[in-house]
Amino acid sequence: MKFASRLDHVETSAIRELFKLLGKPGIISFAGGFPDSAMFDVEGLQEATDKVFQQEPGGALQYGATEGYPALREALSQFMASKGVQVAPDGLIVTTGSQQALDLIGKTLVSDNDTVLVEAPTFLATIQCFRLYGAQVIGVPIDADGVQVDALEALIAERKPQFVYLIPTFGNPSGATLSLERRKRILELAVRTQTVLVEDDPYGDLYFDQPPPPSLLALSADVPGSRELLVYCGSLSKVLSPGLRIGWMIAPPELLAKATMCKQFSDAHTSTFAQATAAQYLRAGRMPATLDRVRAVYAERARTMSQLLQAQLGSAFEFTPPGGGLFVWGQLTGQGPSGAHKLQDASELARRAIDQGVAFVPGAPFYAHNPNPAALRLSFATVGLDKIQEGVGRLAKALLG
Amino acid sequence: MKFASRLDHVETSAIRELFKLLGKPGIISFAGGFPDSAMFDVEGLQEATDKVFQQEPGGALQYGATEGYPALREALSQFMASKGVQVAPDGLIVTTGSQQALDLIGKTLVSDNDTVLVEAPTFLATIQCFRLYGAQVIGVPIDADGVQVDALEALIAERKPQFVYLIPTFGNPSGATLSLERRKRILELAVRTQTVLVEDDPYGDLYFDQPPPPSLLALSADVPGSRELLVYCGSLSKVLSPGLRIGWMIAPPELLAKATMCKQFSDAHTSTFAQATAAQYLRAGRMPATLDRVRAVYAERARTMSQLLQAQLGSAFEFTPPGGGLFVWGQLTGQGPSGAHKLQDASELARRAIDQGVAFVPGAPFYAHNPNPAALRLSFATVGLDKIQEGVGRLAKALLG
Repeated sequence: MKFASRLDHVETSAIRELFKLLGKPGIISFAGGFPDSAMFDVEGLQEATDKVFQQEPGGALQYGATEGYPALREALSQFMASKGVQVAPDGLIVTTGSQQALDLIGKTLVSDNDTVLVEAPTFLATIQCFRLYGAQVIGVPIDADGVQVDALEALIAERKPQFVYLIPTFGNPSGATLSLERRKRILELAVRTQTVLVEDDPYGDLYFDQPPPPSLLALSADVPGSRELLVYCGSLSKVLSPGLRIGWMIAPPELLAKATMCKQFSDAHTSTFAQATAAQYLRAGRMPATLDRVRAVYAERARTMSQLLQAQLGSAFEFTPPGGGLFVWGQLTGQGPSGAHKLQDASELARRAIDQGVAFVPGAPFYAHNPNPAALRLSFATVGLDKIQEGVGRLAKALLG
Repeated sequence: MKFASRLDHVETSAIRELFKLLGKPGIISFAGGFPDSAMFDVEGLQEATDKVFQQEPGGALQYGATEGYPALREALSQFMASKGVQVAPDGLIVTTGSQQALDLIGKTLVSDNDTVLVEAPTFLATIQCFRLYGAQVIGVPIDADGVQVDALEALIAERKPQFVYLIPTFGNPSGATLSLERRKRILELAVRTQTVLVEDDPYGDLYFDQPPPPSLLALSADVPGSRELLVYCGSLSKVLSPGLRIGWMIAPPELLAKATMCKQFSDAHTSTFAQATAAQYLRAGRMPATLDRVRAVYAERARTMSQLLQAQLGSAFEFTPPGGGLFVWGQLTGQGPSGAHKLQDASELARRAIDQGVAFVPGAPFYAHNPNPAALRLSFATVGLDKIQEGVGRLAKALLG
């Protein structure tokens, strides 16, 4: 069978291979990118589903509009208002997870050999998703304050990208959050260069102590002309339930119309059953309490992991404790506690760690090019405090012997 | 904003424009392609959802494997066995409706300017879906026994298509069913020419009196080498609920693996919540009774519509009464009851029909090229018997005055 030439641009995920090893009994996994199932508000979701069956079974089980179930578009419009963004229900479309929003962005905006700029590192599935549409994906360096604006400006001038894709808040995998000052500069840069910005924001609600700066979309109200260049992707997956597959996309009207047309041929529409359930859930007003609960649990896990990493790995592992999200990101320095030169290859460490009974994801696949082989990602989200302690201990043993 | 060049290949659906008129009060609509919401087994689905929340909330609300929720793959394997097809659970993947299976087939198999052969007429969204991936979509003529095999053979020889897409059973829009003899010839033709066949089978379960011939997939057991060339798309949308968005794809292992990789970047996976609900439903054993009920209702509506069309439109409208599915398809002959020459343009009739308070879909958009302007599609699925009588009366008035 002859396959489409676009498949030549992607490779089987290195992470996928690693995940096969996770079946080993007794492994403590810091490898996932999942929220903790134990955090799901099962009672609230069952109440929502019960209401769907009582009040709207015909609509919720039938075909629906490609743009989304009207009650959910309304509820998401209100949810965005609570996050400082004014958007009418028909200013957003519902997508099958925010992954589908990325797919629709690729489908509507990327022609063969177009350049797309992303953070280095960024969400792995984004790189592959855009490459399938023929994109040349180029990474822009980041630091603890997010993407470096001077480097971004230079690459925009050099490459004239179709768009810039950012996860400005608690990025995956970096955990980094773009500072307020950089957010404003980037919006101004977008207007000056007429560059489309894609803001992917699945983690923004998951802050620990301080709320993060407002989203680029919220800030666009202050930068004339920027809203017309902004595409925002939201998701219920990280705070409510990934299994519903509910994401949404806010974009200028013309792009939203094209994305809707493409979605018609991608999956016709997102499950109306899941959409109606999400709408009932949001309307019931349970989200704020759910968010408080989830934030508190993840914050404690993140603090615990950060403290243990500092105590046990010391100068061998360099990272910034995250202020939100699901991930600790850092790099092996090659320094041991006694100053001895240690392992700097995170892939090799991942193999040794599996032998010790702990898993994590090496950072290299998160780079579109020029990977940092010393980088690695640890998720604290699904692991209880005892297991975090045990797991970091195993990691220290794998690294420092 | 500059959009991707692939969007130049598609146009806003003519049907979409027509659907905007359906909001007119009092319109009787034969235009939809929907099953009847009143047929949904709401009680059975609520029982299924209750079990999901009791037994597997963590799994059903969490991220899942791109290939599908294991319990549903198992249940679909058994469902296919009841239809004469042996397929292991890992021989199929779950898709977000069968529309996504079509999208994945396009994504994995179609490069720019590849030829895809389809029936003329065929499902509108298929044509646009494949064109978005750069396909040249070429129609093959059909008659009441489905696609004409000699014409298909000639076009395969001439165009060397990437694949042939067929809806062999109660086709949309044609209602036609490929005869057993033609099914065997097409399987042999596929082996002889090493051509991939895509069998889209959303309607096969919806037969009225006689079951249709076995699917191409079921028959492939008798034609050595044909199974390796067959892709089968199934759906729960027409018999259980479109709102779940549950379809599936059976294909040779290499294609299934590529489609899975692409799906990872399309929507990560289909709603596990909807998948777990469907799995519980199928396991509860309610499907046979649901199918009996749905078949009986649609059969009566189809018979009623067919009889009324024959009685009231007479020689002005030529069609074969359907043996299953959701549609009557036919063409205006230009003959009036008194022999006078009448309207032969179905689009013009559609406009006049709206004025009379009845809607249907003109057939032209269902052709990849060379549309038959006299053809039209009527759905009886969502309309009660009284309304069918009233609607056909209005149609007769619009056509014959």
